[in-house]
Amino acid sequence: MIVVMNMGRSEAQRDAILQRLQTLGLRGQEISGVSRTVIAVLGNVFPELRDELSTMEGVDEVLRVSKPYKLANREVHMDDTVVELPYGVRVGDGHPVIIAGPCAVETEEQLWAAAKGIRAAGAHILRGGAFKPRTSPYSFQGLGVPGLKILKDAGDRLGLPVVTELMSVRDIDAVAQYSDVLQIGARNTQNFVLLEEAAKVGKPILLKRAIAGTIEEWLLAAEYILNAGNPNVILCERGIRTFETATRNTLDLNAIALVKRLSHLPVISDPSHGTGRWYLVRPMSMASIAVGADGLMIEVHPSPDHALSDGAQSLTPGNFAGLVREVGKLAEAIGRPLSPAPERIAS
Amino acid sequence: MIVVMNMGRSEAQRDAILQRLQTLGLRGQEISGVSRTVIAVLGNVFPELRDELSTMEGVDEVLRVSKPYKLANREVHMDDTVVELPYGVRVGDGHPVIIAGPCAVETEEQLWAAAKGIRAAGAHILRGGAFKPRTSPYSFQGLGVPGLKILKDAGDRLGLPVVTELMSVRDIDAVAQYSDVLQIGARNTQNFVLLEEAAKVGKPILLKRAIAGTIEEWLLAAEYILNAGNPNVILCERGIRTFETATRNTLDLNAIALVKRLSHLPVISDPSHGTGRWYLVRPMSMASIAVGADGLMIEVHPSPDHALSDGAQSLTPGNFAGLVREVGKLAEAIGRPLSPAPERIAS
Amino acid sequence: MIVVMNMGRSEAQRDAILQRLQTLGLRGQEISGVSRTVIAVLGNVFPELRDELSTMEGVDEVLRVSKPYKLANREVHMDDTVVELPYGVRVGDGHPVIIAGPCAVETEEQLWAAAKGIRAAGAHILRGGAFKPRTSPYSFQGLGVPGLKILKDAGDRLGLPVVTELMSVRDIDAVAQYSDVLQIGARNTQNFVLLEEAAKVGKPILLKRAIAGTIEEWLLAAEYILNAGNPNVILCERGIRTFETATRNTLDLNAIALVKRLSHLPVISDPSHGTGRWYLVRPMSMASIAVGADGLMIEVHPSPDHALSDGAQSLTPGNFAGLVREVGKLAEAIGRPLSPAPERIAS
Amino acid sequence: MIVVMNMGRSEAQRDAILQRLQTLGLRGQEISGVSRTVIAVLGNVFPELRDELSTMEGVDEVLRVSKPYKLANREVHMDDTVVELPYGVRVGDGHPVIIAGPCAVETEEQLWAAAKGIRAAGAHILRGGAFKPRTSPYSFQGLGVPGLKILKDAGDRLGLPVVTELMSVRDIDAVAQYSDVLQIGARNTQNFVLLEEAAKVGKPILLKRAIAGTIEEWLLAAEYILNAGNPNVILCERGIRTFETATRNTLDLNAIALVKRLSHLPVISDPSHGTGRWYLVRPMSMASIAVGADGLMIEVHPSPDHALSDGAQSLTPGNFAGLVREVGKLAEAIGRPLSPAPERIAS
Repeated sequence: MIVVMNMGRSEAQRDAILQRLQTLGLRGQEISGVSRTVIAVLGNVFPELRDELSTMEGVDEVLRVSKPYKLANREVHMDDTVVELPYGVRVGDGHPVIIAGPCAVETEEQLWAAAKGIRAAGAHILRGGAFKPRTSPYSFQGLGVPGLKILKDAGDRLGLPVVTELMSVRDIDAVAQYSDVLQIGARNTQNFVLLEEAAKVGKPILLKRAIAGTIEEWLLAAEYILNAGNPNVILCERGIRTFETATRNTLDLNAIALVKRLSHLPVISDPSHGTGRWYLVRPMSMASIAVGADGLMIEVHPSPDHALSDGAQSLTPGNFAGLVREVGKLAEAIGRPLSPAPERIAS
Repeated sequence: MIVVMNMGRSEAQRDAILQRLQTLGLRGQEISGVSRTVIAVLGNVFPELRDELSTMEGVDEVLRVSKPYKLANREVHMDDTVVELPYGVRVGDGHPVIIAGPCAVETEEQLWAAAKGIRAAGAHILRGGAFKPRTSPYSFQGLGVPGLKILKDAGDRLGLPVVTELMSVRDIDAVAQYSDVLQIGARNTQNFVLLEEAAKVGKPILLKRAIAGTIEEWLLAAEYILNAGNPNVILCERGIRTFETATRNTLDLNAIALVKRLSHLPVISDPSHGTGRWYLVRPMSMASIAVGADGLMIEVHPSPDHALSDGAQSLTPGNFAGLVREVGKLAEAIGRPLSPAPERIAS
Repeated sequence: MIVVMNMGRSEAQRDAILQRLQTLGLRGQEISGVSRTVIAVLGNVFPELRDELSTMEGVDEVLRVSKPYKLANREVHMDDTVVELPYGVRVGDGHPVIIAGPCAVETEEQLWAAAKGIRAAGAHILRGGAFKPRTSPYSFQGLGVPGLKILKDAGDRLGLPVVTELMSVRDIDAVAQYSDVLQIGARNTQNFVLLEEAAKVGKPILLKRAIAGTIEEWLLAAEYILNAGNPNVILCERGIRTFETATRNTLDLNAIALVKRLSHLPVISDPSHGTGRWYLVRPMSMASIAVGADGLMIEVHPSPDHALSDGAQSLTPGNFAGLVREVGKLAEAIGRPLSPAPERIAS
Repeated sequence: MIVVMNMGRSEAQRDAILQRLQTLGLRGQEISGVSRTVIAVLGNVFPELRDELSTMEGVDEVLRVSKPYKLANREVHMDDTVVELPYGVRVGDGHPVIIAGPCAVETEEQLWAAAKGIRAAGAHILRGGAFKPRTSPYSFQGLGVPGLKILKDAGDRLGLPVVTELMSVRDIDAVAQYSDVLQIGARNTQNFVLLEEAAKVGKPILLKRAIAGTIEEWLLAAEYILNAGNPNVILCERGIRTFETATRNTLDLNAIALVKRLSHLPVISDPSHGTGRWYLVRPMSMASIAVGADGLMIEVHPSPDHALSDGAQSLTPGNFAGLVREVGKLAEAIGRPLSPAPERIAS
C-alpha cells in the first residue's frame, strides 16, 4: 500500500501515520519526490487499512499495490483449472464447450424439444431455469421444483450434464439435488451468503459477472467460493450495463481476454444475455470463441416467439445447429477445436 | 404496446401479428405513417408480450406505453405514503428525518459512543450493520446476532428506532427480531426472494437503489414488496456506478426529484455511500434536503480512522452535529423543517 | 510514479527498469514488500513515462502519485479565482450568479421576451445560442451571426453580460466580437485546438464538462486554457451520461463539491441539460446552490412548447421568476446570498 | 411519433394536442387503451416536435418510431458501401483490410521502421498521427505538418494509402493535402462543423465512435458527412467508456455486429485503443474479424517502450506480423479472407 501525502503535509501528519503503522505491526518507508512525499507500507496489510489511512490528516490518497484476490490469482496458481462434469464433460481444457437450452423450463414438451435439438446439434450441457429472477413481480417466475425435475430428467435421458440458476439459499437443497452445476446469476454475484452456502454443496459453480460488476469484484466473488473450499468455479461473462441501449447489455470480450490472463479459472461467454437480440447471437458467439472463451451459453427455444421469458434473445434449434457448425469451423481454424460430445448417448 | 414495423414489411407479416394478437385475446390497430406502419396493441397486455412480438418477422421494435409498476405508481395512488416507526417517528410526512450510526457494529463501546452522539445531535433513527456485505472474503464481515443485540439495546435505551441490513433469507428471523426497519442493500435490490420474504415480516423496509439499477427497476423492486402485502417501503438513493472514479459512487439527486413525482413512496438519501468521502457528506446532505429528500442516512463513527468498515466516508459525532445544525437551518428556510425528536428520551 | 512489479519478476527485469530511469535522468528506489516489489520513480517525471514503463517486462502496473494539472490545482494556487464580467458581475466570490436565456436565439422577439423576463426576475447574465451543436443534421442549427447580434443587442439594452457557445475555430472572430464570455460546450471540452485558440481571445471562458468526461479530464481541459495564458475559466457541470435514461443526463453534484476542493476555479451548475426535464430544474437548482455552486445556468423560453431547441427542459419566464425567489431564500439561509443585480439598467 | 398521455389526462389537454398538430400540418390519431390513451402523429414530423409535445400538459412521454438517420440507413440504401482508396485498396467489399502504424509520427526513422514492418507483414493502409489530441497540455502534441510529410512520403515509397487524424478545421488544408483518408477522432465525432468541412474535401472519412457515443449518435454523425455530399465514410469502433477501469476502454463488438445490420457503411475495429493493453490486441483482433468487421486498425511502434504516445497499447512489428498471420487464418476459415496486398510495391 502506498500513502500519497498532500503537497502541504506537515511533519506531524507524517509522524502520526508512521506511528499508527507501527502500532499495527507494520512499517512505513518514506520516499520524498520532487513535489510530493509518499509512504510505502510494509508488512501484512489488511483491506480495511486503506480506508483508515485515507481519513488521516495530510493524506491525499492511498494506492493499493497487491491484488485483493489470492486463490483466483494466476500469479499464485499458474495452471489452468479444469472443471470436470458428468458424462466426461470438461470445462477449461482448451476445447470450448457449449451450454444450451431455454431461458426457462415452461413445459415438459418445450424442454424436451429444446433438449433434443441442442443434443443433436452438438451441445455439451443443458440449461434451463426453474427459479427465474424477473424484474417485474408480474412476469413468469418459473416452475420451481417441477421445472428442476423436468430438466434433470431430460439430462439423464440425453446424457447431458444440466445447469440451472440458484436464486436463494431458500432453494439450495432443491437445486443441489437436481443440478450438476449451480448457476449464480448476475443479480447475485455479490450475494455473499449465497456464494458461501452454494460453495459448500460441493458441486461446480457457474458464476456470472454482475450487471455492473468490475473484473476485480467478479474475481473476488469467485474468491468467496474458492475460500469456502470449492475449487470448481466457471466464470461467465454475460454483458455489462453501459449507456448504450441499442443492445440489452454490452458483451465485454475484453474481459474474457483479460480474465484468462489474471486468473486460472475457466471463463465462458453468454451472447444471448450479452446482446439481447437473437440475430446478434451468432456473430458474438464467433467472436467469443475467437477471443479465447472456454465455452458458450446460448438460449435455445423451440418457438422463441411464444417463450415466457427472454424470447427476443433465443434461437430456434435450427439456428442453433447452424451456429454450432460455424463456431466449430472457427474453433478448428484457431487450433482450439470444440470439446468432444458427452460420452453417453440417451437410450 | 406499440409494434413498429420495418419499412419493408409485407402484408403477410402484418397479418401474422394481428392474428397472433387475436389468439391472445388482444386487438391490433394498424396506423400507417409516411414511412412506417405501427400496430397499437389494445387489451390487457402482459410483460412477456414485448419479447414475443419483437421476434416476429417484419418487426423493427416494440415500444411500451404503460408503466410496469402499478402499486408504486403515483398516478394510481396519489397521496404520499407515510411510514410510522416506534417512538413516534414518521418518514415521508414532509419533515425530513435523519438516520445515523456506524457502518458496522464493532463493539458495545463503539456503538454506544456513536449512538449517544447521534441522539444528542438530533438524529431520529439509529443504524448499524451486523451482517456486512463485503467485496472481499478477507474483510470484516460483521458481528452477526451479537451485533444486532448491541444495536437494539442502544435503541431501547436512547428511544430510537433502529435499522440494520438484512443480507439473506438465512438471517431473516434474527434481523426481524431485533430491528424496527429491515434494510435491503444495494447488492440485494433485485434479490427477489429476499424482497418477498422480508415483506412478509410486516416491518417497514428500507430499499436501497441497486449499484447500477434504473429508477424503473428500483420501483419494480418496491412493487415486489407492495405486491406481497407490505405498504411500508422507504426508498434510499445511495449513488450509482458511473465512469467517474474520483468519488466512490455518483449520488443521483435527479433520481430523488423524479421519484417524488413518479411514486408516492418516501425517498431518502445516503451521501456517505453516495460519495465515499467524509468531506463531501455535508455538502451533499445539504443538496439532498434542498432537492426534496424525506431524510438522510449518514455514517457516524466515534473514530473513523480506526473503523473496521467504510471509515473513509464516516463522520465524527462532532462533524455530524455540525451537519445537523446546517441541514436544520436549510430545511427551515425551504419550508420543510426537520422532524421533531423521537418521543421518549432514554432514562 | 510507482512501478508495481509482477510477483514473479526477475532481477534482470528490475535492473532494466532502473537503468532506463537512469538514462532518462531519473532515479528509481526499490521497496520490497511481503509479496511484491515496487519501484518509486524520483525526479521530474513526464506523462508519457507511465505508458513506457507499463510495457516493460516484469511490470504489473504503474501508478501515478502527482496530479497531472498544475495551474488549476488548489494545492498550488489556494485562493479562489473570481472572474470579472461587464456591469460589475463577478463569478466565484461567494455570491452565486444566475445565467439564463433560451437554448437558441430564434427571433428578435423571442430573445427579447426571454431577456426582459430573466432581467426582471433577477438573472445576472444572458445566454442564447447562435451556433448550435445538434445531434442530427436535420435539426435547427442556429441563426449564426445574426443571432449573435440579437443577443448582444439585448444584453446592451438590459445591462447584462452575454454568453454564447463557440463551436469551432471557424467562428471564433464572430463569437469573440459579440460575446462577453465564450462558452465551450460538452462536445468540445476536449477539442484542444479550440481551447487554445479561444483562450487567446482573452475573454473569460465557460467550460462545460464533457458528456462522459472525468473530473480530472475536465481540470486538464481547463489547464489548456490556463496554460495558454487566460486565467478566467468558469467550470460548468451539465450532467454526465450514465446507464439511467429516465433523465437526459445525470447531474453530478458530487463533482461540484469535489471540484471546489481540488481547484480554485469557480464552478456553476446547469440543471436544464443536467435533467432534460423542465419540472426537475427547480429542485436541482436548489440542490446546486445548497452544495456550493457558484451559479446556475438555466434555459428560459417565452413559450417552451414552440421552442426550436431543447423545449422540454426550458422554463417559462414565470416559472423562472419563482425559481429565483426560492433559490434566493435558500442562498440567504446558508450564508451565501445571491450576487447583487448587474450595475447598469438599460435606458 | 407516438404521444403517450397521462392516466388522468383531460379532454381539453387532448384537444390542445390535436389542434397544435393541425396547425403544424400534421394529423393526430387517438387510440384508447385499457389504462392509457396515446396519439399517433401522422405526416412529416421534424425532430424538434418531440421536445415541443413533451412539454404540453397531460403528456407522459413522446416516443419516436422512425430512425433519425436516412442516408446511413440500410432500410433505405440496401447495398454495402465500398470505399475505394489508392493502390487498389477497397474497404467494405467482404475482405477485411488492416490499417497499421504508430500512434504518432515521431521521427523519420521511427515512422519508416514501422511502415516497412507493417508493409512486409501484410497491412493495407499506413496510419500515423501528426496532430495529436492529448488529455494533458504537457504531453507530446505531434509534429504537425512535418509529420504529415514523413507519413505521406513513406506511403508513397511503400505503395500504401495513408490515414491521419484531422483535429480541427484549422488544419484541414494541410491534412487534406497529405492524407488519403481523413480520420475524425473519438473526441470530435460530434464536432459537427468539422464533419461538414471535412466532408467537403471529398476524400474518404474514417469516423470513430465517440468515447461515450451511442450507435444512433454515431450514425447521425455519419449522416452529417453523407448529407454534405460525401458518400465515403468508414466507421471505426474504438471502445466506449464504461465503469470498468481494468481496460482503457470497453471494445464494443456488439456494436460492430449491429451496425452491419442497421447501416450499409463499412465498419472497422480498433483494438489498440479499445483495450489500451498490447497483450489484449491480438485476441480482440481475432474477435473483431470473427464478428464481421471490415478491417482492423492497429498501433505498431518499432520500440513501444520508448513511444511518445500510447506505448502501452502498441505492438512491435514482430508481434504485428504474428497477429496478421493468425487473423489471416481465421478470416480464411470463416469465408472472408483478408483483402489482397495493395497493388504497387515500393521501388
